[in-house]
Amino acid sequence: MREVKSKFDILRQKIYIIIYGANTFAGRLFDLILLGVILLSVLLVMLESVERLDAQYHDFIIISEWIITIFFTIEYILRIFSNRKPWSYIFSFYGIVDLISILPMYLSFIIPGSRMLSVIRALRLLRLFGILNLVHFTGQESKLKLAIKASRTKIIVFVYFILIVSILLGSIMYVVEGKESGFTSIPTSIYWCIVTLTTVGYGDIAPVTTLGQIIASFIMIMGYGIIAVPTGIVTAEFSNMKNNIKPNDGKKCVSCKSEVVKDASFCHHCGEKIRNA
Amino acid sequence: MREVKSKFDILRQKIYIIIYGANTFAGRLFDLILLGVILLSVLLVMLESVERLDAQYHDFIIISEWIITIFFTIEYILRIFSNRKPWSYIFSFYGIVDLISILPMYLSFIIPGSRMLSVIRALRLLRLFGILNLVHFTGQESKLKLAIKASRTKIIVFVYFILIVSILLGSIMYVVEGKESGFTSIPTSIYWCIVTLTTVGYGDIAPVTTLGQIIASFIMIMGYGIIAVPTGIVTAEFSNMKNNIKPNDGKKCVSCKSEVVKDASFCHHCGEKIRNA
Amino acid sequence: MREVKSKFDILRQKIYIIIYGANTFAGRLFDLILLGVILLSVLLVMLESVERLDAQYHDFIIISEWIITIFFTIEYILRIFSNRKPWSYIFSFYGIVDLISILPMYLSFIIPGSRMLSVIRALRLLRLFGILNLVHFTGQESKLKLAIKASRTKIIVFVYFILIVSILLGSIMYVVEGKESGFTSIPTSIYWCIVTLTTVGYGDIAPVTTLGQIIASFIMIMGYGIIAVPTGIVTAEFSNMKNNIKPNDGKKCVSCKSEVVKDASFCHHCGEKIRNA
Amino acid sequence: MREVKSKFDILRQKIYIIIYGANTFAGRLFDLILLGVILLSVLLVMLESVERLDAQYHDFIIISEWIITIFFTIEYILRIFSNRKPWSYIFSFYGIVDLISILPMYLSFIIPGSRMLSVIRALRLLRLFGILNLVHFTGQESKLKLAIKASRTKIIVFVYFILIVSILLGSIMYVVEGKESGFTSIPTSIYWCIVTLTTVGYGDIAPVTTLGQIIASFIMIMGYGIIAVPTGIVTAEFSNMKNNIKPNDGKKCVSCKSEVVKDASFCHHCGEKIRNA
Repeated sequence: MREVKSKFDILRQKIYIIIYGANTFAGRLFDLILLGVILLSVLLVMLESVERLDAQYHDFIIISEWIITIFFTIEYILRIFSNRKPWSYIFSFYGIVDLISILPMYLSFIIPGSRMLSVIRALRLLRLFGILNLVHFTGQESKLKLAIKASRTKIIVFVYFILIVSILLGSIMYVVEGKESGFTSIPTSIYWCIVTLTTVGYGDIAPVTTLGQIIASFIMIMGYGIIAVPTGIVTAEFSNMKNNIKPNDGKKCVSCKSEVVKDASFCHHCGEKIRNA
Repeated sequence: MREVKSKFDILRQKIYIIIYGANTFAGRLFDLILLGVILLSVLLVMLESVERLDAQYHDFIIISEWIITIFFTIEYILRIFSNRKPWSYIFSFYGIVDLISILPMYLSFIIPGSRMLSVIRALRLLRLFGILNLVHFTGQESKLKLAIKASRTKIIVFVYFILIVSILLGSIMYVVEGKESGFTSIPTSIYWCIVTLTTVGYGDIAPVTTLGQIIASFIMIMGYGIIAVPTGIVTAEFSNMKNNIKPNDGKKCVSCKSEVVKDASFCHHCGEKIRNA
Repeated sequence: MREVKSKFDILRQKIYIIIYGANTFAGRLFDLILLGVILLSVLLVMLESVERLDAQYHDFIIISEWIITIFFTIEYILRIFSNRKPWSYIFSFYGIVDLISILPMYLSFIIPGSRMLSVIRALRLLRLFGILNLVHFTGQESKLKLAIKASRTKIIVFVYFILIVSILLGSIMYVVEGKESGFTSIPTSIYWCIVTLTTVGYGDIAPVTTLGQIIASFIMIMGYGIIAVPTGIVTAEFSNMKNNIKPNDGKKCVSCKSEVVKDASFCHHCGEKIRNA
Repeated sequence: MREVKSKFDILRQKIYIIIYGANTFAGRLFDLILLGVILLSVLLVMLESVERLDAQYHDFIIISEWIITIFFTIEYILRIFSNRKPWSYIFSFYGIVDLISILPMYLSFIIPGSRMLSVIRALRLLRLFGILNLVHFTGQESKLKLAIKASRTKIIVFVYFILIVSILLGSIMYVVEGKESGFTSIPTSIYWCIVTLTTVGYGDIAPVTTLGQIIASFIMIMGYGIIAVPTGIVTAEFSNMKNNIKPNDGKKCVSCKSEVVKDASFCHHCGEKIRNA
């Protein structure tokens, strides 16, 4: 059965290698072209939003966007067509991103202005990591992911605390400052509190009363102090990960093949004596 | 004596399990309802402060707040009633928070406007940690607490230094800049100095003279440099704690008395079998 | 000769114990009073700078400041008088601070307005560490000092780099943005660059041209990235210090009395066998 | 042939020692003078940009700049002349910087205003590290370089993520906020997003709608959280480097082959004397 491959199957496999692969010349070329087109499409949506440029080059931008959308549509169809498990692609993260990247243009016939959403194509830039496909880069990426994943729960608890603190202090500032100095409502005060706590400090809203400024000073110093907490969490996680990966340069017990502790004289799993080669 | 339990005692115990417990279905349901009502009550106080919304839905918001206050009052009474040591609850952190959450509404009969203080209900959100009662979460929480506790003294010393520096530099800036550029008094200048040192930078007050800008640049770089200090303190504390907690809780080999690795079956120093007591 | 202590000498010694000591009741009381007076004097200078308060309580503030100045003058004279090595006190850090704290008031007869400088008294607040004299606190303080001292050279190199980068990028922004958007001169542009690089961001000067905003974005991301460098330096120093202080819980060799390595079987100084007690 | 050194060759060598060397008195003096002239030239360009000063001292500044430029030109020619491999100097980093430092003045005959570019001379300040030539300083510098180099790839990945996030969130904010509140185009919105994410927060553009403020709050907390990532990376790198450098450069005991402690006289495992090779 396996030998009886129709021309159709061969074509499908060839397309698959070009689109999904990065080892052949054609596959690599396709990836680079794709990257360029994605960058171009993001740039076009940006330029369109600049009034002065849109007025001058409106037709050029619209035509270019349609060409890119058709290119993306063909690519999307070929991806589904060439994949052996089309559904798993369609419902994968990249599959959904690819679909959302082309939908807004077609929707703009029905809902005007929805074309603006095509900026979501920027997400396709994430493919860069796959396209560059460097062991080095992806290695770093996965380390970053691991460290962030390990600190996730701690960071959620941390953000939760920040939100409660912001609600409380924001409400107090609303009562203290009143509506004259920009603290027009509790939600606005909470927004101001987050702006201050994260040391962003726009200055569109700023306390003017003495008590308000004292509370604000307290919030700033607190924000300055607690910036240490997430940093401490992630750093400890990074250092820890490093230590977990490096132990003993991977020396293994000759008897049970499990990794041994640094400076061990005996394997702590099977009690076998460790020979220092 | 113990068998002679009056119906009253049984009721009290049942209520206790529902309100304080989280293991039964009823207890869990009560917790979730409570969480929802707390969130709703905080949201209502927020919405009321938005003028546009208050004008439109004033009656609806007031009635809802009264319903919630009555619900909280009943809950508060039941908590006192069902607890064997009512006084220890009343004077506990949550007991006081619970009382303060309901008082403002009743006080609003006497002192108008005091209802605004009911935003203190947000503190009740802290119960979430108890309600979710996840080993994972509370474990993280206690670790965070430990690390922050360990770095407490260092952070107090640090904040004290920052305050002295702010008083000194704020006063100098007041002399240098004068009243034209917003440095109207020494307290205001100190406020500005804290705003700058913590890298918040509202911009409501900003130096305009050359000397003022030079001093301000110096303050910024200093602030940028010393942000490292609390971070360093907390991170070192985190890393340290991790190292202290991980190594097998200090279990030792019965033969050579050296500390053993976590999950070890044999001592890696002398090869002795480890007995898990 | 030693027995022949004149009444004068005894008085001098008593004053010395009260002023410099903190172990006797009188010494402790004096310290607390001194702390209170210092806080009060700083507060007074602050209040005087607030126009509204100064107009109302001018006479009261002036009289209070004179009383405090006389108190400080007496204290200063007694410190010199009671100290066996008066010159070493006079030229010590605190001796100079104490003198500068009282001079401005006397100078205000000759140079009006110089009284404002008396805010330098805030430096006397540093005595708090001596007054509280807690082993715990001073221990922390010295640790902080050690860690900061160890990272000093690295931080100087770091600040030097930041300054050169600010000069370069500030000049480029001056050329790019021009005088319309607030970049009126290269020094002002450098000031703006430091404001941006340290993530303070007042917003009194902000780029408006597209190229300027692109360069500004680049500066911000760079500033965001290099904030990691001083933090990394100090944290590593902290962690390192901790590891250097903690090893082996201070176990010592019985033969040469030097501290031994953790898990050592033999002293690495004299080769003596280590007995695990 | 080697003995037949023309006077020309001797002169060249003498100049080389003065310009490139720092061990002789003349060489050291030259370095200090050079440093002074560089600082002066940077200062002059700065002062010229201040309108008020330029109006008053225009002629003085122009003449001084020409003197410095001629000094730099002579130095540049001598560096090429005295160097045995002139081309390797010309195309080295410092060679190019030296050339660019003098070019703008000569170009100002042809293109007016290009003189402003002479601020690039600030780059020459980097020579300070060479001039001070302190083992201590350069040691620190190289450590900094190593740590930054080791974290380079991770930081590139990190910056890339930030850019994509900024493009996405900036576009969303453009759609949400509209042109009234300063979000005039997608590039401007992206600029605002970077300003917010890096916690700079100028406030020249700030969200005014409720939804915009919620998204902005989310961006701020995210920015506040991810500031931890580069810090964690660099810190872990620093700590790691320290551990790799410190432990005795991997010296081992000749008897039991285990690594020995720094400065050890005896192996702490087997008591063998350590021979310092």
